[in-house]
This record gives sequence, C-alpha cells and structure tokens, in this order.
Amino acid sequence: MDFDTIAAISTPLGEGGIAIVRISGDQAIGIADKIFRSANGKQLEEMDSHTIHYGRLIQPRTEEMIEEVMVTVMRAPRTYTKEDVVEINCHGGMVSVNRVLQLVLNNGAKLAEPGEFTKRAFLNGRIDLSQAEAVMDLIRAKTDKAMNVALNQMEGRLSKLIKSLRQDILETLAHVEVNIDYPEYDDVEEMSHRMLREKADHIEKEIKKLLKTAEQGKILRDGLSTVIIGRPNVGKSSLLNSLVQENKAIVTDIPGTTRDVIEEYVNVRGVPLRLIDTAGIRETEDIVERIGVERSRKVLKEADLILLVLNSAEPLTAEDQQLFQAVEGMDVIVIVNKTDLPGKINIGQVRDLAGKHQVISTSLLKEEGIDDLEQAISDLFFQGELESGDITYVSNSRHIALLHQALQAMEDVKQGIEAGTPIDIVQIDMTRTWEILGEIIGDTVQDSLIDQLFSQFCLGK
Amino acid sequence: MDFDTIAAISTPLGEGGIAIVRISGDQAIGIADKIFRSANGKQLEEMDSHTIHYGRLIQPRTEEMIEEVMVTVMRAPRTYTKEDVVEINCHGGMVSVNRVLQLVLNNGAKLAEPGEFTKRAFLNGRIDLSQAEAVMDLIRAKTDKAMNVALNQMEGRLSKLIKSLRQDILETLAHVEVNIDYPEYDDVEEMSHRMLREKADHIEKEIKKLLKTAEQGKILRDGLSTVIIGRPNVGKSSLLNSLVQENKAIVTDIPGTTRDVIEEYVNVRGVPLRLIDTAGIRETEDIVERIGVERSRKVLKEADLILLVLNSAEPLTAEDQQLFQAVEGMDVIVIVNKTDLPGKINIGQVRDLAGKHQVISTSLLKEEGIDDLEQAISDLFFQGELESGDITYVSNSRHIALLHQALQAMEDVKQGIEAGTPIDIVQIDMTRTWEILGEIIGDTVQDSLIDQLFSQFCLGK
Repeated sequence: MDFDTIAAISTPLGEGGIAIVRISGDQAIGIADKIFRSANGKQLEEMDSHTIHYGRLIQPRTEEMIEEVMVTVMRAPRTYTKEDVVEINCHGGMVSVNRVLQLVLNNGAKLAEPGEFTKRAFLNGRIDLSQAEAVMDLIRAKTDKAMNVALNQMEGRLSKLIKSLRQDILETLAHVEVNIDYPEYDDVEEMSHRMLREKADHIEKEIKKLLKTAEQGKILRDGLSTVIIGRPNVGKSSLLNSLVQENKAIVTDIPGTTRDVIEEYVNVRGVPLRLIDTAGIRETEDIVERIGVERSRKVLKEADLILLVLNSAEPLTAEDQQLFQAVEGMDVIVIVNKTDLPGKINIGQVRDLAGKHQVISTSLLKEEGIDDLEQAISDLFFQGELESGDITYVSNSRHIALLHQALQAMEDVKQGIEAGTPIDIVQIDMTRTWEILGEIIGDTVQDSLIDQLFSQFCLGK
Repeated sequence: MDFDTIAAISTPLGEGGIAIVRISGDQAIGIADKIFRSANGKQLEEMDSHTIHYGRLIQPRTEEMIEEVMVTVMRAPRTYTKEDVVEINCHGGMVSVNRVLQLVLNNGAKLAEPGEFTKRAFLNGRIDLSQAEAVMDLIRAKTDKAMNVALNQMEGRLSKLIKSLRQDILETLAHVEVNIDYPEYDDVEEMSHRMLREKADHIEKEIKKLLKTAEQGKILRDGLSTVIIGRPNVGKSSLLNSLVQENKAIVTDIPGTTRDVIEEYVNVRGVPLRLIDTAGIRETEDIVERIGVERSRKVLKEADLILLVLNSAEPLTAEDQQLFQAVEGMDVIVIVNKTDLPGKINIGQVRDLAGKHQVISTSLLKEEGIDDLEQAISDLFFQGELESGDITYVSNSRHIALLHQALQAMEDVKQGIEAGTPIDIVQIDMTRTWEILGEIIGDTVQDSLIDQLFSQFCLGK
C-alpha cells in the first residue's frame, strides 16, 4: 500500500540514556539523509540494510548541529511496518528528543498517530489484527504471565486456531454448494443438513474450548482486582504488606499512568492480583468506615476477589456481619487473623456466614497461615489446572465477545436444521460465523473499527 | 582497561513502543549469544559490527521465549564506551524491559551503576571529564539554549581551550627549566621572571574571558529562577499567563521529576526563565500573604529575577513598599500594570522606590507593554551582546570554581614575581594552575571525585 512517511518518538517520555525517533515510509531514508551527516561522510542511501551509523543531525539550511546520534537503516520489507524504517537514537532528554522529532517533521515526515506503525504492519500484511492487539497488551502487561499471554498471541497462536476454524467452515460451505449444484443423489438436502450439523457441532466444541480459557486469560491479562476489607485493626495492612513482600510486586509504579485508583500488583502462585486502593488501606485503615459510601461500593462491585479479614481475638460484631452482606454473591476468602492471641471469635458462626467460601486462619504477626491463603487464592481461580505453556488463552474482551457471537450463530445453524429451514438460510448463519471469526484476525472488519482499535495504542508504536 | 561486563535499561521508564537494554564489556556479545536466537540462525559473534538483527530472546535452559527483539552489535573500539556494546531493543513495557534486563543479568552481566557507561567512555579515553559532564547536562536540558551549551561542551570546545592553556603553561615551564639548567646568560633569573609574568598575564586574560561567559552560561544551562510578586489582584496570574502563552513553554512536565517546587519554563528572547511556584500564583494569588513566611523568603532569596507587579489604578500601599524592601539588592523589574484604568499610582514615588531598576508600564488586559517587559528582561541579562553560536560558554559550577582557583594561582605567580620570590617557588604556583585546569577535563583528578560526579547521572547512560 502507499502511505505518507510518518515519524514519532518511540521510547517512553522522560530522562534516560537513549531515546528513539522512528521514521517509516518511502521517504524515510531520503528524509534522514537530508538531516544526517555520518562520521564517514556516506549517505544512508548507500548503506546496507540493518546497519547502524554514528554521526550528527544538522539543520540542512544552516548546517547548525542539532544532536549527536546513531541512526539505524532498515529497508522494506524486512521491517516492523514492511516499509523503509529509519530509527534515530539520540540522547534521552525531553529537549533533545523533541528537537529531533521536530527536525524530522520539518523535513517531510508526518507525525504518526498513536499505533500507526503497528497499524501499517497490519495493513501491509505482516501481522493480523489479533497479533497487533497483542503488541499493545504486551506493552501494557503488568505481570510476567500477562506478558506471556500477549507474546503467545503476538506469535500468532490464536490466529492459527481461528484461521483453521474458518478454513473448515469454508470447505464445508463449498462442499454443500457442490452438492446443491450437482445433485447426484435425491437426498442432497438431508446430506447437506447432516454435514452442516456435524460441522456446527465441531466448531461449537472448538469455540467452547477457547472460551474456557477466557476467564483465566482475562485474569492473566488484567490481573484479579482484589480488595481487602475488614474493621480497623484487624490486620488489613499486615495482610497487604505480607502479600506484597512475599510476592515481589512486579510493577509498583509507572510514571505517567493515572493515579485515580492506587494499585499494587503481586503474583500469588501464578495468579496476578491487582490490589486496589491499597494506599487508602495503608494510610487510614478506613475502608470499612467507607462501606456504604458510593465509591467504596463501586470498588467492591468491580472486584474479582474480596479478602475479608476478621479478628479472632474479638467476638464478631455487627459491622463484621454487614461486611458479609456487602460481599454476597462475590468471590470471597474469609481470613480469621490474630490466631496468636486467645480466641474469642465464634468460629462456627464465621463458617455459617462464610457459607461456601473458604475460611483461612492466620497469624500475620507470626507469619502463619499465609501459605494456606495463597493456596486458597490459587485454587479459587485455577482449580487445579496449572497453566501450561501450551495453552492458547483468549484474553481480549473483543475476541471473547466475538467468540460468543460465533457460538450463537452455530446455535442458529443447528436450530435451523432442527426446524427444517431451507439449506440456503442455514448457509447464511454458517457464513456469518466465518465472518465473525474473521473479525478477530481482522480479515472481515470495518475500517472504522480498525481506526478505533489502533487509536488506543501508545504513541510511537 | 579491564572491567566487568555491565548492563542497564537505557531508555526512560514507562510505556512506549521501544525500550533498550544496553550491555557493555568483553562479554557483551557472548552473553547476548547465550540468550538470543536470530531469525536466520546465526550467532551474533559471526555478525559484522554495527549491524542490527531480528530474533527472540530465550531462557537458555528451557528455550522458553522471553521477548521478540532487535539486537544491535557494536564492536570495540567504535562504540560509546570503547568496549563491545550490544543493545537489545524490546517492547517498551515495564514487564518486558525488566524481564530482558533480568535475563541479561542472570547470564553474566553486572547491573550498571548510574552513569557507568559514560564513566567508561571517560576512563577508556574516548571523552574527557568535561565532555562526560556535558552528556548529563544535555539529557537534563530544559530549553533549546541549554541543550546547545551542552552540545558545544560535549563536542569538546571547552576541552580544547583548556588543553591549549595547559600546553602553553607546560611549554613555559619547560623553557624556564632549560634556562635554569643551561644558563648561557647572566640574567637567567630576570628572563625567567619576565617569561613567567607574560605567560601569567596571558593565561589570566584567557581565563577571565571564559569566566565572562559563566554567568550567561549558567543562565542558559539552568534557566533564570524568576519569581513574580505583588499584592492580590494586581495581575500576577495574567503576567504569568502572558509570558507562558507568548513564549511557548519548552518543557512543562516531565514524568518522574520532583514536584516540590512547581516550575514552568519559558523562553524570553533567548533568556530561559524558570518561573517558580507558578502553581501557587495561579491557584491562590497568595504569594504576597506569605511574604515573611520562611519558605517564601527562601524562594525569593534563590531567585535570579524578581518581577514586582503594582496596580496603577490604586495608590501605593504599605504592602507594596514592603515588597520593595524584601527584594532589595536583587535583580528586579518593576511592572506597573492596569494602565487601561485611570491612573492613581504616584509614578514618581514608584521610580524613587525602584531606584536603578527598570519600571515598565503594562496593560496585560489589552496586551500592551509586554514587548517592553521582554526587552527589559533580555537587556538585564544579555546587555546587548546577543548569544552567538561561536561562544564557548562555561556553565558548570565545578568548572567555574576551578577557573576561579586557577585565576588565583595566576595572581600568586604575579605577586611572587613582584616580591622577588625565588623562581622555583613561582614555578610551583604555575604548576598548580596547570593541575587545576587539568581537573576540569579530568586529567588530574581524584578517583573519589570521579565516582561522585558519575553517581549523579541517570541510570543506563
């Protein structure tokens, strides 16, 4: 395809040793040659692909020096975008990298939109849409597992599965078409119905298998929103600290991200927990007082996991009971803490209130019971099936929604056959599944959707 | 020299398209080969220098994939550190770049200290100390001018001047030595004295020339701390806004920097102003109320420029007069604002209070008088001498202090000669100047000072 030549800062903003301005398009090397003077006097045009060169950037008219840089030349098609790509490595300061970008823009490049480099990789056919989406997931990944899920998807494992399902559908449809066009037997209709039903069963089974990974996939991708609740002084901060300390937070603070809700990531036996509003707990121990306040309700409602902490050295209070009510219907683990002190809590009553939820006894002070808690968290979300490197997780909400639609279309196919619907109507439902699956990999997808998806990318990718 | 192989994240932290982990040292390529599988199956060891290669990072024992990367190989000595350098370009996410760094460290590299790559460039003789210091100035530069001063110094212009002065001194000392060893004439003592005095005069002149640039150099490097003061409602916020709007702030917000004092950078006719505590002005207009409070006193004391705003539509108040007292002895520009309203201020009295300071009339509402103000700021700091690209500025406090010491030593030489001090004592003072100048470029400098200087660098440079 034929596009403008685009440029953007591709490294995170801030102060560091190195920053990169990336240029992609037909004019990439030409533009770079206007502003780059290599140490050996050669033009980039003469350089081999995939080589890196030391020199200076200059203002073409005045020859005034702009920066000292290393420039990488990569020629199409063996590049990220499948276009000519030039990467200018300059000093990692705000002025430096902005001035380099400005120079590149003043000499013929257009400022890239967010995600535009990856969009070109997609539009130029190097990767499909689900792989492009995985790039962003990978950059945003907050835990190792999340990154693995994204890497796996970026490598095209999901795409391969989807493509093979679509191929299956296409072959069946072709077969049915042939049957209709050249009816050698009288029972063409019945044969076609049988064929379509069998295929629908198969596709349905495969999609269900994929969707079975979706819940875990989403947890691995986004982490499990976890809220610790309990009355003051039951040990919420101690619980938080012990979870954070024992399970090295992978990411604690990323400059530039929203700080509306303060989060901390910990990795409990493969389950990434996103501990919500932990600063609040640490500083004021007041979550319980805010139960009933709208914001806290919202946090609770959005949580995937509630850790409800009780004090074993005190009888249950009305407040404790209200907490049980507040988290009804949610995934809860009840923690009876301070078992190092003489027990005054009625443990039978706790078990009644807990119902089907697990009850774990801990003494956070003496570091007892933490193993049990971690096992309980892991059991709750991975029910014994340990993640194996071979599973292809579906983790993207868009993909999950499309798979559900595809499943529904399969259901329609089967119901149509039951109801004796004419074969060409059933074919339409079958074709719809083929189209829906195509949207996952971007084969059958609206331009507007593509624009919208890539606009969520970060700049420079 | 022989060092460990070191590695660090060289791009700013955060989310972006690309991040770089840099490895430097004898083992750089060997370590990279353990964990990198190139797409074409070749080892980096076999690759040409200054080439970049696509492939995957893997965990050597399990062959588990860690990241999809581009790897640049640069062999000694044509590299930043003069050692073998490998740069791994991975996805710019927190997990990705940390996991790549961890892999590199687990396979034999040592985590680099802040500034260690640049320190090696210095210790391996690629750049001198003043050039190394310029690298950090360049990364930290907040304005274009500051970056130019740093670039200039990084290119070695200051070093060249210093080296030539030292060479001069050395030759003179050698000459004097020869005179003493082979006295062909009777007036050896007198000749040597004359020679030393002439050289001292020359060196003194040159150092003074350099120091003359220091004040402007420091302003260009750090910006001019500027505080706007005035009673409530005299137009402080309007002044701030018009300065910011007319002179496009070059850097407004860098993620990760301290926010103790809120600053805004504007560029007024080549003079970079660092407007201090502007948030305070914007939100509360209360600086005046806080005059007398210790913190405000401190801000005032550290300011390089005070913009004192008065309201021309009201008579001078006792508060106004207190403000004049508070800024006595400082660089002040007095702004009589709101000239669009009927004047009630006694302008004669204002001029008396202002003394030698300039008084500018403005109507910020009608955008009048701003040009005059900007001219006044420019006049105050550049006294008509416009910055030319050819000036070599001294901007670093360490350098300035050393130049003052060198000047003092020259003074000692001259006084010694006046006082008829024996020639070998005068020679000692001359040698001291040579040593002091050597400290600027790092020729004659303590290891502890070097460690301390580089520890102020950012990580990965």
